[in-house]
Amino acid sequence: MEQLLFWCDLIGIAVFAFTGVLAAGHKQMDLFGAVVLACVTATGGGTLRDMILNVPVFWLHDSHYLWLASITGVVSFYLIRYLQVPMRLLMTADAMGLAVFVVIGTQKVLALGHSPTIAIVMGVMTGTFGGLIRDLLAGDIPLLLRREIYATAALSGAAVLVLLDASGTLPGELVAAIAILVTLSIRLAALRWNLSAPIARFGKHG
Amino acid sequence: MEQLLFWCDLIGIAVFAFTGVLAAGHKQMDLFGAVVLACVTATGGGTLRDMILNVPVFWLHDSHYLWLASITGVVSFYLIRYLQVPMRLLMTADAMGLAVFVVIGTQKVLALGHSPTIAIVMGVMTGTFGGLIRDLLAGDIPLLLRREIYATAALSGAAVLVLLDASGTLPGELVAAIAILVTLSIRLAALRWNLSAPIARFGKHG
Amino acid sequence: MEQLLFWCDLIGIAVFAFTGVLAAGHKQMDLFGAVVLACVTATGGGTLRDMILNVPVFWLHDSHYLWLASITGVVSFYLIRYLQVPMRLLMTADAMGLAVFVVIGTQKVLALGHSPTIAIVMGVMTGTFGGLIRDLLAGDIPLLLRREIYATAALSGAAVLVLLDASGTLPGELVAAIAILVTLSIRLAALRWNLSAPIARFGKHG
Repeated sequence: MEQLLFWCDLIGIAVFAFTGVLAAGHKQMDLFGAVVLACVTATGGGTLRDMILNVPVFWLHDSHYLWLASITGVVSFYLIRYLQVPMRLLMTADAMGLAVFVVIGTQKVLALGHSPTIAIVMGVMTGTFGGLIRDLLAGDIPLLLRREIYATAALSGAAVLVLLDASGTLPGELVAAIAILVTLSIRLAALRWNLSAPIARFGKHG
Repeated sequence: MEQLLFWCDLIGIAVFAFTGVLAAGHKQMDLFGAVVLACVTATGGGTLRDMILNVPVFWLHDSHYLWLASITGVVSFYLIRYLQVPMRLLMTADAMGLAVFVVIGTQKVLALGHSPTIAIVMGVMTGTFGGLIRDLLAGDIPLLLRREIYATAALSGAAVLVLLDASGTLPGELVAAIAILVTLSIRLAALRWNLSAPIARFGKHG
Repeated sequence: MEQLLFWCDLIGIAVFAFTGVLAAGHKQMDLFGAVVLACVTATGGGTLRDMILNVPVFWLHDSHYLWLASITGVVSFYLIRYLQVPMRLLMTADAMGLAVFVVIGTQKVLALGHSPTIAIVMGVMTGTFGGLIRDLLAGDIPLLLRREIYATAALSGAAVLVLLDASGTLPGELVAAIAILVTLSIRLAALRWNLSAPIARFGKHG
């Protein structure tokens, strides 16, 4: 369990750092600006979660997270100059980071003994906040708030994890893997077929 | 006192959640995006206040705040499809949330034994931060920073509360009610008559 | 040492507050909106640093920081109406605030016993976050993320400080002064000659 989440964590950090550099590339930021954006995207969600829970921020006593995000940032920075990076890759990498971080966030909060409601809310926050900041800083409309199913995918994954965890019949590793797959499939399906949840509309306003 | 503030708190949560959904409606977000924006708007100010004060975040051990914001969010989401919602309603609801949260924030910080300066600053922050994030996320110019008297209304309400509290002649409930009315009247008057405080201008620049 | 950093701190607060008002002036905000922006710019970096480190936020028990930011805000607000303020002044004042706060932030984190990596990261954060929020709130593209060398200057200053501090041969005051000069010179040189670090580019994408 610990092991699986440890590797997922590293993957989440790396793919989110990569999306930060892709966003920086679209805005033609410089190397260090791109690395800053990579680090903020990769660590933003977990940082907010830990600050709200009032536990030590996860990268504060273990700086390999920051090194991983920075090095991924530098490597990606030079990579995207020589490789053809399809736009859709940003979305797919973001979906992987989302799935992994929602599950890690929800797990961590459950393990701290908080209620299922709080675990789901904090899980969604962990998964979505880094990308939200990335989009805000890069001046894009946050993915979280666009029409494609994004918050919905995160909520579903967190809810599945909380339910399976409460039923207690499956081993923790399997529960985590299922919740990651649920989040990822919903998000990728939404991207693939342009699905969307009901849209807010006004009856009439003036 | 406790009672009054308890109800005001719930009203503040609900009206700010409603403004979040209205903002989401203008951007045609989907249901869950709208609910996320409702929750962030409703809880953002108090969350930042508690994080800065290093006290437990108010919704962490009492999840009815999140439920109230979410349910208000869902109900508003469907409501605005069938009802005529005048644009001005967003401003009025926002003014109510502002007034209530400024007073609750200031009270809470005074009760924790901080100085009047800090109480006023944190009160203004509690009242304005949720709406600020809402506007930032929805890509609007924050109300806080527009010309209409907004920060001024919040500052006045917090200052009145601190002054009346220091004089100690009136019961706490009355003090809170007066401060809420002061904030609300200034803000609504500014909206009604297009009042504005002095505007920043450059003598000349090149 | 203490003394030097104390004065630098006050200068940093004042120049960042000034840049907040200049940004407010460009958007024609009102007096209190400008003061709010001044305070957020002046205290934002240190506030985030202290929240992440879980130490008391620096202005919470010492309200002269807020008074200094507010009074600087009010004075600047009226000053920029009568004086010719060249646009370049915003950049120069911002560079001074950046240099001072990067060094103060790095010092504070080293003094708390954190690793050099964390000290550098938190130093950069302390120096850049206030201006980042200012730019976000004013609806500008953050200076931090533009092409001109900004994050690079902050990183260099923090790294120089950590290296000189580790070598232990120079007195603390001198180390701080050198690191401030390094940050300031790199940033001002970048502004003067339009220098830029390597820019993120896509090989090709579709």
